[in-house]
Amino acid sequence: MEHIDLEKAIELLIENTIALEQKEERNILESLGFVLGEDIYSPIDNPPFSRSPLDGFSFNNKISKNVSQNNPKEIDVFSEICAGDFLEKEVPFGSAVRIMTGAPIPKGCNCVLKQEEVEFNEENQTVTIYKEMKAFENFCYQGEDLEKGTLVIKKGELITYNHIGVFASIGINKVHVYKKPIIGILSLGNELTMPGERLESGKIFNSNLFTLASRLKSLGLESLIFNPLLDNINIVSDFIEANIHKVDLLITTGGVSVGKMDIMHDVIKKINAKRLFWKVNIQPGTPVLASVKNNKIILSLSGNPFASLVNFELLGRKILEKLSCNGIKSTYTLKAKVSGNFKKKSIKRRFIRAQYINGDVFVNNDKHSSGMISSLLNKNALIDINPGNNGLNDGDIVEVILID
Amino acid sequence: MEHIDLEKAIELLIENTIALEQKEERNILESLGFVLGEDIYSPIDNPPFSRSPLDGFSFNNKISKNVSQNNPKEIDVFSEICAGDFLEKEVPFGSAVRIMTGAPIPKGCNCVLKQEEVEFNEENQTVTIYKEMKAFENFCYQGEDLEKGTLVIKKGELITYNHIGVFASIGINKVHVYKKPIIGILSLGNELTMPGERLESGKIFNSNLFTLASRLKSLGLESLIFNPLLDNINIVSDFIEANIHKVDLLITTGGVSVGKMDIMHDVIKKINAKRLFWKVNIQPGTPVLASVKNNKIILSLSGNPFASLVNFELLGRKILEKLSCNGIKSTYTLKAKVSGNFKKKSIKRRFIRAQYINGDVFVNNDKHSSGMISSLLNKNALIDINPGNNGLNDGDIVEVILID
Repeated sequence: MEHIDLEKAIELLIENTIALEQKEERNILESLGFVLGEDIYSPIDNPPFSRSPLDGFSFNNKISKNVSQNNPKEIDVFSEICAGDFLEKEVPFGSAVRIMTGAPIPKGCNCVLKQEEVEFNEENQTVTIYKEMKAFENFCYQGEDLEKGTLVIKKGELITYNHIGVFASIGINKVHVYKKPIIGILSLGNELTMPGERLESGKIFNSNLFTLASRLKSLGLESLIFNPLLDNINIVSDFIEANIHKVDLLITTGGVSVGKMDIMHDVIKKINAKRLFWKVNIQPGTPVLASVKNNKIILSLSGNPFASLVNFELLGRKILEKLSCNGIKSTYTLKAKVSGNFKKKSIKRRFIRAQYINGDVFVNNDKHSSGMISSLLNKNALIDINPGNNGLNDGDIVEVILID
Repeated sequence: MEHIDLEKAIELLIENTIALEQKEERNILESLGFVLGEDIYSPIDNPPFSRSPLDGFSFNNKISKNVSQNNPKEIDVFSEICAGDFLEKEVPFGSAVRIMTGAPIPKGCNCVLKQEEVEFNEENQTVTIYKEMKAFENFCYQGEDLEKGTLVIKKGELITYNHIGVFASIGINKVHVYKKPIIGILSLGNELTMPGERLESGKIFNSNLFTLASRLKSLGLESLIFNPLLDNINIVSDFIEANIHKVDLLITTGGVSVGKMDIMHDVIKKINAKRLFWKVNIQPGTPVLASVKNNKIILSLSGNPFASLVNFELLGRKILEKLSCNGIKSTYTLKAKVSGNFKKKSIKRRFIRAQYINGDVFVNNDKHSSGMISSLLNKNALIDINPGNNGLNDGDIVEVILID
């Protein structure tokens, strides 16, 4: 299909993306940002025993009946329990234990009185209380956070730091997660020179490879960075045939337009990939090409830096969302009010770079060419401009897509 | 100082934090999320030469004077230039070159006519044009993105994927960045068992270590995880003395309240640390303790899981922001509308866990105890409740702090 709408292109990509269902076991500290691959049930009551929420004295509340400021009562202190201790014996009725925060409330006791509210005679091991206590006052129940057997976290949730804290709290140190997809990035172009190398006449530095690899990294994905290749059908075809098994998605840049060096059309024929679409009705990035080889998508982006980023954000992230079992979120749209203006008419649907801050989107007329990259600095949004638009003016309400 | 307000505690922490000014050189692909430690000037014009933005034919526009649909002109094609090529020779006046997107516009030419708008006779190597061209029509100027010597990115900026793309585009493959701080995490408590190990009577699993380490990771920081220690003044003091040189900030959990096992007070005396404050007028996390040893802050958090997280978000991130030269952002406050209610009265300033979605903050009365952790799942915000508040009701406007 050629010259299709963005929504159709997305539909075709999602239809042809196979979610990666392989799992691996990871230490919980290494599971941040992964998608949980199993339901987690609590193997214990948490807390595992009834415990004291404060430093004080624990006893059976009945012995405090009618105790008050004017009718205090002195009680024997039977023992002392700190967090981590465990008292096997039952506390005799009429006695108390000195208890610290987090320590198990022993058998025979059902409340805790704060140490600031009593008088403790350490020498005699007695405590004077001035207050009647209710049963289970200052008493944290066994299992009040989580009962043994509760379904705590469902398969498919994205693991955050709070999930990791909860795993640890119930004793789980390893979890099964979905493997993250591996994304190959291959840039094509006789003109490309790697940064750090000497720039010969007619050459430019390769920026797409670096923008895309670090963009993937910012989304939590590592990429497999291939050495850039020259615009040669045989070289590129052989390379893809030999390397596509290493990745779950292959992103290429360059070689997709109509010129003599736009070799990707011949490459996908040569490697027997199935073309899904070529040319999407958006600007920049119209000539984006998508194909499928060995059940894997090859997404071939425009070689222009801004166009390739737009292609990736609008299309690549949709693929990643499905591929990663929702581990990577695709872009979403917000309404925003234009501040500044953009004077160009748009024949096609157009995406321009802008800065979104809290409901406002700032735009100017400078440096929008798709070959320009420096004007991406401090931009965090794309404005989605409808075909036929005559320009954006201060105060217009527009749709923006965050790309930060 | 004891029983101080949150703002005062923050002030003391910032005052006593020394920003880490050490730098290191990193490959640009490994610089994501670091703070740039140098001003970056463009070493080249970008693009390095004037180039064609499309596939077509380039010539001196004067030869197209009065050319139109009814008055076409056939021109000799002198040569062909693809991206990456460079034509040394000047194109003779009256001739054209076939030029591909990204190729340098050769001497003698000043415009590019789209290949879709001409008739190219490949055999005779002539092109027929039907249009008068303006000087510099479809012409990308050398340096139009960045001129050589321009200050492109200032020292102190946080490096995003767009920065990395721009570094690459001007040939820079390594940059100097500020080193990231190393955060040590030490949890204290006789009751603590590591997840995966067997839980003995009276013990609980250590969750703080895991919550904090993965929280730091989610903020882009690696932590140095120390083995948990028992509540023993000598052991803990010796350990801190021996290991504090390895970290830029030491976070400890537990041992800061008023009980018998709250050893951190004695530990900081023993190691001659200077106490900055103890007890902040917030709930949970009141007993947080801060001290300074060898110009490094030791932030000693409550041992209760939710309290320690609140302490970290409100206080720890303020330290990290300064320590990291603004590489880590501290929390910020938003207004939100309460959905649900929270019935408890607040004597002190209180922070409760809640879920913030686009202007609304969802809260209920369940599981707010600071010892509970499972109710942190799917919470991404703290509601900041003023002292004296009688409870939150549906529709109240409150201040929330995002902790996602």
